[in-house]
Formats: sequence, C-alpha cells, structure tokens
Amino acid sequence: MFRHVVLFRWIDGADDESKAAVAAGLRALPEVIDTIRDYRFGADAGVNDGNYDYAVVADFDDEAGYVVYRDHPAHRQLIAERIAPLLEERVAVQYLATDPTA
Amino acid sequence: MFRHVVLFRWIDGADDESKAAVAAGLRALPEVIDTIRDYRFGADAGVNDGNYDYAVVADFDDEAGYVVYRDHPAHRQLIAERIAPLLEERVAVQYLATDPTA
Repeated sequence: MFRHVVLFRWIDGADDESKAAVAAGLRALPEVIDTIRDYRFGADAGVNDGNYDYAVVADFDDEAGYVVYRDHPAHRQLIAERIAPLLEERVAVQYLATDPTA
Repeated sequence: MFRHVVLFRWIDGADDESKAAVAAGLRALPEVIDTIRDYRFGADAGVNDGNYDYAVVADFDDEAGYVVYRDHPAHRQLIAERIAPLLEERVAVQYLATDPTA
C-alpha cells in the first residue's frame, strides 16, 4: 500500500466557512478519483500544543495510483481554489506503508 | 478511529544505520503498546521534491488510546534515544479519522 500524508497549517484568520469548504471539497474526491483506496482527513483534535491544523492521509495500491490523485484536475482545482488561500505551511511525505506486524 | 500523524525531517548527516535503528524501534512498539490498532511508518519515497524525510501514522480506537501510546515508556525511550538525535524538524496532527465515504 502506498500512502500520501500531508499536514497543513492555516493562516491566521482562516475562517470556519473556508475551512468547511476544504472539508467538503476533500469529501467529494473519492467519488471522482478512482485510485483512492482510503481517504481520511480532519482538523487537529487539540490534544497537543504546537501541532499543525489539518491532516489528509490518502491510501493507494501503488505510487502510480497516488500520481493519478496528485495530478487529477478535481484535486488541483480544490488546492488552487480552497486550500492555497488558507495555507501558511504545508509538509508532506509519500511512503510505502506496509504493515510491520503482518 | 483516532489517528496520529507525525512527519520528521532529519538532520544533514543522519546516517543509514541510525535511520534503520529508528525503523527497528518503531517496528517493536505494536507488540508492547496494546492500544495501537494500525501502525505504518516509512521513509519518503522520493516522488516529490520538498518533502519531509519520514512518516509515522498510528491508529487507535479513541483519543485515550493515543495518549497511552504517546506517554508509553517504550515510546518515550525510542524518541529520546533514537529519534531526537536525528531530528531537524517535526510536525504532527492528531484527528478523528472517520471514513468520509462510509
């Protein structure tokens, strides 16, 4: 399994409506990008200080499936129109996420 | 499901042996921390420029399960002895990771 992880820190003043529009946009992607196997995103729960604000974890069969997602027009549009305007910082990793206990 | 995501950037000069010791240490944790439901970690695959170097994603039934992991002595020892010496930057998010398509 190939996993994409991205964490966002929003700008000061990112409003709730704009953040809800990000979630709504993400929610729609698995219906239009058929290489997505599992897709879980959400706002930081506030358990620890110093965290970033938002996480997206997307699972694919392989790297090629991730690249389809990365470059898909619906994804690029969501990034350009809803995520980029809120973005202060972004960090990401893609990795081969085999189960170490298997 | 409650998900913990952490991304690391290693210091320049972090050697392969030290990085392998991190992976070995992570691999041992699910055997000793019984609140871990799924645990997937690995080095960035090199698909994109500008990424961090390493990801750990850990899934729990709930926030309390995560806190057991966070504070477990075996986890704290791994952080102190093997991760901290390699660490240039660290970003994290914990979030309620329900399946949006369910």
